[in-house]
Amino acid sequence: MEQPSSLSPLRVGLAGLGTVGTGVIRLLEQNGKLVEQRAGRAIRITAVCARERHRDRGGDLGGYAWCDDMAELAAHDDVDVVVELVGGSDGPALTLARQTLAAGRGLVTANKAMVAHHGMELAQMAEAHGCGLRFEAAVAGGIPVVKGLREGAAANVIERVYGILNGTCNYILTAMEASGADFGESLADAQARGFAEADPAFDIDGVDAAHKLAILAALAFGTEIDFDSVEVEGIRQVRAVDIAQADALGYVIRLIGVADMEHAPAETRLLQRVRPCLVAKDHPLAPIAGPTNAVVAEGNFAGRLLFQGAGAGDGPTASAVVADLIDLARGESGAPFSVPVASLVAAAKADSGARESRSYIRFMVADRPGVLAEIAAAMRDAGVSIQSLIQEGEANGDGGVLVAMVTHTGPVRNVRQAVAMLEGSDSLVAEPLVMPILRN
Amino acid sequence: MEQPSSLSPLRVGLAGLGTVGTGVIRLLEQNGKLVEQRAGRAIRITAVCARERHRDRGGDLGGYAWCDDMAELAAHDDVDVVVELVGGSDGPALTLARQTLAAGRGLVTANKAMVAHHGMELAQMAEAHGCGLRFEAAVAGGIPVVKGLREGAAANVIERVYGILNGTCNYILTAMEASGADFGESLADAQARGFAEADPAFDIDGVDAAHKLAILAALAFGTEIDFDSVEVEGIRQVRAVDIAQADALGYVIRLIGVADMEHAPAETRLLQRVRPCLVAKDHPLAPIAGPTNAVVAEGNFAGRLLFQGAGAGDGPTASAVVADLIDLARGESGAPFSVPVASLVAAAKADSGARESRSYIRFMVADRPGVLAEIAAAMRDAGVSIQSLIQEGEANGDGGVLVAMVTHTGPVRNVRQAVAMLEGSDSLVAEPLVMPILRN
Repeated sequence: MEQPSSLSPLRVGLAGLGTVGTGVIRLLEQNGKLVEQRAGRAIRITAVCARERHRDRGGDLGGYAWCDDMAELAAHDDVDVVVELVGGSDGPALTLARQTLAAGRGLVTANKAMVAHHGMELAQMAEAHGCGLRFEAAVAGGIPVVKGLREGAAANVIERVYGILNGTCNYILTAMEASGADFGESLADAQARGFAEADPAFDIDGVDAAHKLAILAALAFGTEIDFDSVEVEGIRQVRAVDIAQADALGYVIRLIGVADMEHAPAETRLLQRVRPCLVAKDHPLAPIAGPTNAVVAEGNFAGRLLFQGAGAGDGPTASAVVADLIDLARGESGAPFSVPVASLVAAAKADSGARESRSYIRFMVADRPGVLAEIAAAMRDAGVSIQSLIQEGEANGDGGVLVAMVTHTGPVRNVRQAVAMLEGSDSLVAEPLVMPILRN
Repeated sequence: MEQPSSLSPLRVGLAGLGTVGTGVIRLLEQNGKLVEQRAGRAIRITAVCARERHRDRGGDLGGYAWCDDMAELAAHDDVDVVVELVGGSDGPALTLARQTLAAGRGLVTANKAMVAHHGMELAQMAEAHGCGLRFEAAVAGGIPVVKGLREGAAANVIERVYGILNGTCNYILTAMEASGADFGESLADAQARGFAEADPAFDIDGVDAAHKLAILAALAFGTEIDFDSVEVEGIRQVRAVDIAQADALGYVIRLIGVADMEHAPAETRLLQRVRPCLVAKDHPLAPIAGPTNAVVAEGNFAGRLLFQGAGAGDGPTASAVVADLIDLARGESGAPFSVPVASLVAAAKADSGARESRSYIRFMVADRPGVLAEIAAAMRDAGVSIQSLIQEGEANGDGGVLVAMVTHTGPVRNVRQAVAMLEGSDSLVAEPLVMPILRN
């Protein structure tokens, strides 16, 4: 049990002084003594860098060296670790990350897009230069789930990792549940309350959740990060009627990111999907409401572990950033992705169509004879076995009536084929929506 | 970022070959390659010790050196770390722990009773001899909550830590909820299904939960472990009628361990309580059913973090034990209780009577005039303000009728006083039951 080689402070260069950056400063001011005790040495911000030097950030930055550009921060004599809170998968953030690691300094980042796209390169650089790379804040805000997978569940083969990875979507879906309001109205409300961005696409189209899922999958399965193979669908298509139907069937709707592995004889295949799912009301993810994140990891010895908490916000994110700094201050040495980069497996993309699942399928159809027969015929021809079906009596907003069904367990590709067969039919007045039922 | 100084295997001496011990052996056989990758070196059991050498344990132990007594294991040349799975707060387990640390070897234990009673002494020895001490498996089985508090939430002042810490009690309470059965019947059923011991006292009287709470409190608040000051009440007094009443009021009943701190000018005071509580149905702990554990930590930056999973069982416990071994194999150096023992604060015991709470109070009373007046007068005289009260029409099993009430928020000591005033009254046919309503 080696003690940190020196009790000199860990000197931190902070890049990005938005809400999270100022949160980190506030945390170190407020909890500094405690952090020092737990880290075994002080953690001190020595230099900062942000776009606008003279913006009022509600605090005094006079004690820190100001770097006008980030290259200066990465090379600063008084910096052991750079905290990157600049954001964006490429551009200045990535340049800073590369310069930091190349200079042999540690890097702590909250940047899920950068880690999802360039995590392998950065981990390799960290290894090559013998410095630390940590990104707890990049996944699920303040929840220590990266540590939970990397260390807490390290003795387990992880069989599946999944969860509620986007607080904005969860806020909107649970608001729709509570109010009966439709998507647009709930989004506007979320925006008004600060739970959704003015441009919400990144969240509601599932991209943010996909970034987190790609990172979680690499940690859980020891695979190379493969963001491009994540299948992503957001929540724009979910309607109030879907939530009502799901409720009647004993489910709630949540945006779920899920990843698992297929160990075929010839190759290892990785399945990564983000999409709205029906979740049984007695599943631990079902009661999770509002802008909360929750990650489930199923280990072959630990069983089902669940980590839950605030998925975003300056306080939780700062908490995760400083936890990483404490790790580095303690001299903890584990590989960023739990195993050396060379040991990570390049997994092929699994064929989601070959998976067996129960599905919820909703059509909005024209209110005239023969429509149901047409849908039923498509299901039959594609080999989809219907477990239950409901057709609503009355036309609603867009002049269609609702036909919703739940299938028996069967290949996902059959459902896709049935829906494809109906594409372009006059009978449909809107895009159909298919949602899987999450396996318990 | 120092790498472990050598890539030689971490050599483990295993004391105790019950279900958890054989679980650890099975885990290292089954997941050994993965564990080696994640630990950066192999983890190998080299020596074992148990009471009966020749019992059939379903595996071949021939590859391990057999130690006839534990002193031999602690001093064995081929042992870097001892895993103590013997159990019991004192006796052989404690002797082994002391010998192991005194010999400068690491110690991993699943023994919550020993850590709750002797954790401070053992942590001090570990510090003095420069060796590791880990006890993830002692709290909440496979859930990495010790790590979660010690490292994941390390940047936070923890304001409160609480949770469902005993799977047997949770199994019984949620079975009562589901079936409407009374306590005795549900206990017998839990015993038949293997969720309760033949002698269940340790679990159902709250002692096991109290051990875990005392450890969690020390980790969360940086206080010395103080098991003796935990106020403990078990679940024997909970009746089916209480669960029904709670349900009608929007609550479930859970055995909750809760700890928090009072920072008075003169001294720091620690409150630790284990008892059945009313938990609002929308609280994250309410949906947790069966033999599951869940721990909530409220951080001043992270907000509410929840860790959930299997609280016992050989697989989950082995998972936690081996996670600790991986930490030690990686050379991780943090103090067992997050800060050096000398920094832990000896907190005074807070006065739980001075706390403000809403309470549920249930009386079983004789079915005759004047009883309600007597109770109401006691409440008034003790200064307890009743928010709602229900008196059941009919006498039940023990010839009493139920009077249940919920108080407004007020000092706990007033409620105690009211109940004490009624003690010995002819009007009561059974002990009254007081349960706090868990603050959301």
